[in-house]
Amino acid sequence: MSEIVQKVLAGDRLSLTRLLSKIEDGAPEGQQALAELFPHGGRAFLIGVTGAPGTGKSSLVNQIAYHYRHPADGGELKRVAIVAVDPSSPFSGGAVLGDRIRMNALTGDAGVFIRSMASRGSLGGLASTTAGIVQAFDAAGFEIILIETVGAGQAEVDIARLAHTTVVVEAPGLGDDVQAIKAGILEIADILVVNKADRPGIEQTERALKNMLQLAHPVRRDFTSPYLPASGEALNEALWMTPIQRTVATEGSGVLELVGLIAKHREHLSSTGDLARRERARLAAELDMLIQLGLVENWQKRLGNGQYEETLVEVVSRRISPGEAARKLIGMESK
Amino acid sequence: MSEIVQKVLAGDRLSLTRLLSKIEDGAPEGQQALAELFPHGGRAFLIGVTGAPGTGKSSLVNQIAYHYRHPADGGELKRVAIVAVDPSSPFSGGAVLGDRIRMNALTGDAGVFIRSMASRGSLGGLASTTAGIVQAFDAAGFEIILIETVGAGQAEVDIARLAHTTVVVEAPGLGDDVQAIKAGILEIADILVVNKADRPGIEQTERALKNMLQLAHPVRRDFTSPYLPASGEALNEALWMTPIQRTVATEGSGVLELVGLIAKHREHLSSTGDLARRERARLAAELDMLIQLGLVENWQKRLGNGQYEETLVEVVSRRISPGEAARKLIGMESK
Repeated sequence: MSEIVQKVLAGDRLSLTRLLSKIEDGAPEGQQALAELFPHGGRAFLIGVTGAPGTGKSSLVNQIAYHYRHPADGGELKRVAIVAVDPSSPFSGGAVLGDRIRMNALTGDAGVFIRSMASRGSLGGLASTTAGIVQAFDAAGFEIILIETVGAGQAEVDIARLAHTTVVVEAPGLGDDVQAIKAGILEIADILVVNKADRPGIEQTERALKNMLQLAHPVRRDFTSPYLPASGEALNEALWMTPIQRTVATEGSGVLELVGLIAKHREHLSSTGDLARRERARLAAELDMLIQLGLVENWQKRLGNGQYEETLVEVVSRRISPGEAARKLIGMESK
Repeated sequence: MSEIVQKVLAGDRLSLTRLLSKIEDGAPEGQQALAELFPHGGRAFLIGVTGAPGTGKSSLVNQIAYHYRHPADGGELKRVAIVAVDPSSPFSGGAVLGDRIRMNALTGDAGVFIRSMASRGSLGGLASTTAGIVQAFDAAGFEIILIETVGAGQAEVDIARLAHTTVVVEAPGLGDDVQAIKAGILEIADILVVNKADRPGIEQTERALKNMLQLAHPVRRDFTSPYLPASGEALNEALWMTPIQRTVATEGSGVLELVGLIAKHREHLSSTGDLARRERARLAAELDMLIQLGLVENWQKRLGNGQYEETLVEVVSRRISPGEAARKLIGMESK
């Protein structure tokens, strides 16, 4: 076993920080460490928190983390990791901003570890890197891992696949547009939160969500991979009635109840056997992402010098279509 | 040349509808038709319209289309296609909903063609299908193609890559959250629209956008592909100061000015030579998507029966990590 893995397993924070950077950089050392760490993981409970911009997700994630660190009524103290993922920042900066607005009450707490990640040009890369980061936290003994994603797109659905319990956050005032509450995003929600519940329009938003939930039930979670459609499988899960919880994250109200609902959902997953099924689907989705990234990498290595560029010129001059060009370039691979 | 292609080129609407369905279904006939149609395209101007949910994008797209159909002051009448893409509906229904809320003034106009698309489980598939749909409209003689996407994630950035001019839509009231206005999404904007400009908070939103634009300038568009990072290239474009336009799409105000800004940007692209550079980057991104999809398809065909499932079992039992498993399964490919 490598030294960095030994240190991470022993709880060394600096080694963990170094390892996370290696994973994010895609360094071979990081991959090797992940392979060594993997058998030591599988104990963490993964909570995904997603929702549209403007809903106050980050504050809510901070509050949830705070509750696990300051459990009420003899609750269990847990070590908490936060992975804040921002796929809508393909360029840069989002991660840094995310770090800056983090809660003061969490800083200096050795039982909390926060890692922000921005996309580096590759969505598949971001999701698989997130999976690696989560594995490292899991093996390092963090019992609760909060995976926070921004937005309401496919990227969030992909990253939600990494979690055991998915919390979807809405807020009043976004609901006046047909597009504000998406059926798709509701279908990945195990728990719905209406944050900023002290704002006008809360009843209207909650009513709209209830109506949509009634239309959507019974929800059958489908973990079919967006990467390798044929390898995915439909999960035939036990029925769970998605609850709606009001919160005001900035004041902390409703957060205790939300943490209670998360515990209830976890218990539901365990008692029905769905936890094992989700874990399998989760790992399958992760495997699929890595296969796809690896296939592209291999193809690039095999491709002859200049072949891609020559073919692109033919496309740009409209001599051949992008589809024909792709078939041609892929054909070169097997020669 | 196949019959369907002849009919589409001759302007037959029913054949076009049939072709679009074949493209969406991924049928070989659709691919063949696209290859035949491709040399006939390249004349359409592609306008991407993107933004977060709740900003009123659909109404704005309708208004833009209406303006090209009813040009003011002797402007040129154009045939308009709208491709409404909803990547946040991986499940279903979004496309149908999108169709229903479309503008009455556009229905029955033979010079307008609206096509809504929801994701069918594959983000890459959605983007490449969108590209195919756009190619078909282009070859069929639609001079303006509006590509509308929902949300603010990587999917929108990918689909924005398909356009010549990208319009990013914001709205007042979303700006109270640090995350509401993303630096990443701003960087793909050629024109910024603040829609719902009759609402309170318009000055604040506009000021925030101006500040962020100042921080972001000069913008250098980077078309590096999220699919094949190595094949992408940085565009070294001429400087364009992203303008901000207020609109109230429901009333049509500001839309004439917006259409004027789109024309100005098009002229800017032409006069600087950036149009050709963007067209090349656009086609490269499209080619990259198709290569990636093809690589996965080939790999799946070659994979032995049960190999994937056996390896997944090893991962689920934590004997090997997802990374090791992916390397193993990809290795099988070359045997």
